[in-house]
Amino acid sequence: MSKIPVAILGATGLVGQRFITLLANHPWFEITELAASDNSVGKKYGAAAKWQLPFEIPEKLAQMSVLPCDPLKVQAPLVFSALPTDIAGALEIAFAQRGAIVSSNASPHRMGADVPLVIPEVNPDHLALAQTQQKKFGSKGFILCNGNCTTIHLVLALAPLHQRFGLKKALVTSMQALSGAGYPGVASLDVIDNVVPYIGGEEDKVEQEPRKFFGKLKGETIELADIRISAHCNRVATRDGHVETVSVEFDHKPKYDDIVAAFDEFRGLPQELNLPLAPARPTVYRREPDRPQLKLDRDAEKGMATIIGRLRDCNVMDYKFVLLGHNTLRGAAGATVLNAELLYAQGKLG
Amino acid sequence: MSKIPVAILGATGLVGQRFITLLANHPWFEITELAASDNSVGKKYGAAAKWQLPFEIPEKLAQMSVLPCDPLKVQAPLVFSALPTDIAGALEIAFAQRGAIVSSNASPHRMGADVPLVIPEVNPDHLALAQTQQKKFGSKGFILCNGNCTTIHLVLALAPLHQRFGLKKALVTSMQALSGAGYPGVASLDVIDNVVPYIGGEEDKVEQEPRKFFGKLKGETIELADIRISAHCNRVATRDGHVETVSVEFDHKPKYDDIVAAFDEFRGLPQELNLPLAPARPTVYRREPDRPQLKLDRDAEKGMATIIGRLRDCNVMDYKFVLLGHNTLRGAAGATVLNAELLYAQGKLG
Amino acid sequence: MSKIPVAILGATGLVGQRFITLLANHPWFEITELAASDNSVGKKYGAAAKWQLPFEIPEKLAQMSVLPCDPLKVQAPLVFSALPTDIAGALEIAFAQRGAIVSSNASPHRMGADVPLVIPEVNPDHLALAQTQQKKFGSKGFILCNGNCTTIHLVLALAPLHQRFGLKKALVTSMQALSGAGYPGVASLDVIDNVVPYIGGEEDKVEQEPRKFFGKLKGETIELADIRISAHCNRVATRDGHVETVSVEFDHKPKYDDIVAAFDEFRGLPQELNLPLAPARPTVYRREPDRPQLKLDRDAEKGMATIIGRLRDCNVMDYKFVLLGHNTLRGAAGATVLNAELLYAQGKLG
Amino acid sequence: MSKIPVAILGATGLVGQRFITLLANHPWFEITELAASDNSVGKKYGAAAKWQLPFEIPEKLAQMSVLPCDPLKVQAPLVFSALPTDIAGALEIAFAQRGAIVSSNASPHRMGADVPLVIPEVNPDHLALAQTQQKKFGSKGFILCNGNCTTIHLVLALAPLHQRFGLKKALVTSMQALSGAGYPGVASLDVIDNVVPYIGGEEDKVEQEPRKFFGKLKGETIELADIRISAHCNRVATRDGHVETVSVEFDHKPKYDDIVAAFDEFRGLPQELNLPLAPARPTVYRREPDRPQLKLDRDAEKGMATIIGRLRDCNVMDYKFVLLGHNTLRGAAGATVLNAELLYAQGKLG
Repeated sequence: MSKIPVAILGATGLVGQRFITLLANHPWFEITELAASDNSVGKKYGAAAKWQLPFEIPEKLAQMSVLPCDPLKVQAPLVFSALPTDIAGALEIAFAQRGAIVSSNASPHRMGADVPLVIPEVNPDHLALAQTQQKKFGSKGFILCNGNCTTIHLVLALAPLHQRFGLKKALVTSMQALSGAGYPGVASLDVIDNVVPYIGGEEDKVEQEPRKFFGKLKGETIELADIRISAHCNRVATRDGHVETVSVEFDHKPKYDDIVAAFDEFRGLPQELNLPLAPARPTVYRREPDRPQLKLDRDAEKGMATIIGRLRDCNVMDYKFVLLGHNTLRGAAGATVLNAELLYAQGKLG
Repeated sequence: MSKIPVAILGATGLVGQRFITLLANHPWFEITELAASDNSVGKKYGAAAKWQLPFEIPEKLAQMSVLPCDPLKVQAPLVFSALPTDIAGALEIAFAQRGAIVSSNASPHRMGADVPLVIPEVNPDHLALAQTQQKKFGSKGFILCNGNCTTIHLVLALAPLHQRFGLKKALVTSMQALSGAGYPGVASLDVIDNVVPYIGGEEDKVEQEPRKFFGKLKGETIELADIRISAHCNRVATRDGHVETVSVEFDHKPKYDDIVAAFDEFRGLPQELNLPLAPARPTVYRREPDRPQLKLDRDAEKGMATIIGRLRDCNVMDYKFVLLGHNTLRGAAGATVLNAELLYAQGKLG
Repeated sequence: MSKIPVAILGATGLVGQRFITLLANHPWFEITELAASDNSVGKKYGAAAKWQLPFEIPEKLAQMSVLPCDPLKVQAPLVFSALPTDIAGALEIAFAQRGAIVSSNASPHRMGADVPLVIPEVNPDHLALAQTQQKKFGSKGFILCNGNCTTIHLVLALAPLHQRFGLKKALVTSMQALSGAGYPGVASLDVIDNVVPYIGGEEDKVEQEPRKFFGKLKGETIELADIRISAHCNRVATRDGHVETVSVEFDHKPKYDDIVAAFDEFRGLPQELNLPLAPARPTVYRREPDRPQLKLDRDAEKGMATIIGRLRDCNVMDYKFVLLGHNTLRGAAGATVLNAELLYAQGKLG
Repeated sequence: MSKIPVAILGATGLVGQRFITLLANHPWFEITELAASDNSVGKKYGAAAKWQLPFEIPEKLAQMSVLPCDPLKVQAPLVFSALPTDIAGALEIAFAQRGAIVSSNASPHRMGADVPLVIPEVNPDHLALAQTQQKKFGSKGFILCNGNCTTIHLVLALAPLHQRFGLKKALVTSMQALSGAGYPGVASLDVIDNVVPYIGGEEDKVEQEPRKFFGKLKGETIELADIRISAHCNRVATRDGHVETVSVEFDHKPKYDDIVAAFDEFRGLPQELNLPLAPARPTVYRREPDRPQLKLDRDAEKGMATIIGRLRDCNVMDYKFVLLGHNTLRGAAGATVLNAELLYAQGKLG
């Protein structure tokens, strides 16, 4: 069977580059178009992208001419969006209107009432919202979002707990990697021998998005879950991988071993469907006293898992633990691709 | 009036070096003896210490011969202890028994029933416990402790809130600097592009010590305060200064402006007595959206203040904020010296 | 005597901020005007500058309104220029034409035939070129330049050798700090766990400027010295201070001890005139096997000295050694101020 | 055909860990014994090794009991040595005497008269020295060394130049990664915002070893090449990969394009024999103005190549360029394994 042609919007940025590496040899998808901002249009991709990854750009893609992010000029039926926040909102709608399915890493539509905000292991049923959009747009097109990079790993760690024990509250402090801010992103003078205790807009995303991921599909919308989350977001001097300390409170405090078992046993649709990018274990619990650590764990399960450790009692809430995950793989481009793989496996790509 | 002769125990380590710089030109104290471990004994201090600070060692001290940490050989009536944890317990008692007043940065005696654990701005009345020790030791000697580096800055930030509004709970995540682990301390391969989510013994100190700082003096002991604290402690790639995110809960939630006013207005005995090392403001609240930051704020007020910022509502507890402070100045050697200055100003040095 | 009013051009950048701290309490100069680019004009300096130094902005300067870099609106007879390269050339000429003496850290005029490029310890006689400019401009104004940050420290280390032994060649590899690129400057993803082996235009400056510093004043121009210098310039993950490894070759190879003596004994006009910012020792030779190091040495002598160490035989040239120096103090703003202090002390400020 | 059983000496250290990952699934070799220092003996390898690599230890090896580094207890006919310098000398001889072939990354025997110091692309003929050792030891055993991590990449870059144009001199400054010092190795306080301009013993290795690599086999010894090399070695804050700036001088200065061609076209015996760990290109010349960079290039060719860039004229010598290479792969464990692969392919493993 021939592969589905796909386009990448915002192909030259850091997340766009991750799309390139994840899709260059994909079994189901084939990159046929690369689109980026005006100053890249018309250039060869290899010349337009300030490449940041420790692999060579596949030669065929390096030679591809960059297109504008214009739904009339980019024709693929499936587009991956790594568009900047300020233009993603309108552009993604325009793509959906002309019939494209947009798997997006951008934030503007995440909390939209008819937009599925999906982690395939957590809430694949939310995909039903796509039909509402298709009706609205009068096309086969719709927008499908993944969450914020910090949110996704938090939700992956909380999902097995919420499913089994009913989560009430979570308090999280993140220590986020530099690649989360793109390139050039954070100034080096802000992170060498420093911590920046503020990331614009981040805390709000981490506090709101989980309520949608854990929400219930009610007709044509999602009823947000009644979970209270509070976030402190910080930037530290690491290249890739967000670390988060988490304290959690339940309706009824579960037993320690039951929580570890929940982390160990968590599986979802991607594992069942054997999606190409699915991790064997979406959550990995480490028993060592000083794990997880970025240098050892961020690339586990192809960078598609959330790695957890140090579960212990919390004096203020029920339990506390630490987690980490790769922010541009499972936290961004990997999430967007996995969402598209789910669509494909469920026959929703037409 | 002639200065009081003082000795430094553990003089070659990082905290010992800070003692050197804080005491080299002190108006009340004069370093007369430097003591360290066996492999330094007999050497000139300048040769024994692997010096880590961006100042030259004062020449007179560089030429001083290092003594053993032996209460019979070190004769000063006031000793500053930067002894390693494993030997500090017994040695500090031996010094107190021979009549020395021990101002200690070491942890073993901090939670001892008759040991004052003091931050001069917070609980100077706890010094009364010294008499209990003097009776026990049958000497003028006693041990006076400061807290853990992470604890001190947490308690300084919480003190104005607890005094005015009654604190119930605090949940803190620390991002701690490398100097907190001494030299050589943390392996470079553990912190370049990494976060270590574990510091042995640290969380317990941060959770227990504040209960003593905020405790009430009842006769010959301290009744621990009924405050629940939970800590996540992490090591990050910074040289000096611990950053802490804090969420707090009160009996009754105070107004935002009243909290800021509490931070702004907080003063204590060191400011009143005008102690040489006292910061003009022990807590400094910054209004900028992205402050405090180590690179800008850790040396404020001579490294003797706790710098706070980003006060905002917390979805899980009442409020949240971020703080930072210099870990080897106000968090260690500076705290030990300030405690001794308080003794001096109150006429308790004999 | 009243102080000389001075203006700072490019006051909001990193070098501009260093000017602020060096001039805020200067005994001879008083900052009366601050000028910067259009998007800062009209704002209070405290709001316009993205402040990067670990001191508070002096309140009086924080409240000063930022002026445009326009010679008709900035009136001080002495201006310090931290203007960006692309506009410094024309603007500095305009200031000199209206009669201002311009002490500049910018590069465009450094190699100009009638522009003195001066390190006061090395070639103060080159100041004579100012008259040529004054004639040309028909005003009291002229431009006085300091060198590139990497060049200055190289030349300070080579000067005592060249003066005593006659230098033929030098081969230098620099490991340069991030502040050298300004703020935001280098992207953090380019320096965490990385080295950038290229700094645009830098190697040419390091290779050419020393030939002028060591050149002979011949009438109205400088005869460049016949010294061959080759540079490899790299950016590494340090905040402040450039480190340089240097191999040197002489007409006749001097004795080891004579070189060390030359470093030890080097003094110049700033020391003789006791200029406010002059280091007691412009070159400091360290005997330890692993010095100099940034963490210990970059702030020596107020950041105004070049610190040298590890002198040893070189298999390819005569000797080799390592040096370091503060790049925004002696390597930039400090050099510009020292040049102006020399003018003042010599009565050349009118 | 069954695989050759191999042992790893010093298996728990950083280089030992790289041996594990390179040999775990090797087509020719099978790890049957792991040996380390006394405090690891008897433990499971997984518990004894403080694992530092971003892969899981293969379960079978994690369960293997650690043996002492004793030639009577370790029986494999081929042993890979990552022994510490202070014990490697005597122990490797003992292993060779009992008949083991020792492929060593340790330094003590590198310059030994009858010890082949080999880079398979450069001087495979030096292997003939093994027979001299076999006679001396009266066994099939001998010691085969690879060079120092900084030396290997320097020699790989110089080899194509020396072969074609005759090299006279090279002057190199290294910026070396932390993994080169092992674990725990360099103290974090020595590298965050710092450069250490000294690595004990390193410069001598870099200056002497190339003379042997480029030496001529004369009967039972190597006549050292008449090439003068001078090295400045520095430690910087990078995890893996050494960067080196190099200036070179030839008998007759070659043309620029001929040098680039030499880098491009360089191949040797490993490529001809298609050794499992051989890079397709041992030297890779990058045309971009700011390459090579660690973040992009150190893992090229499986970490087994030397990546070169920025070739340009040198004012002091003929040409200059920058190179980098992975220090624990081609610079250590990868070199040791490649040497053993060469032995295997040439039928010298018995």
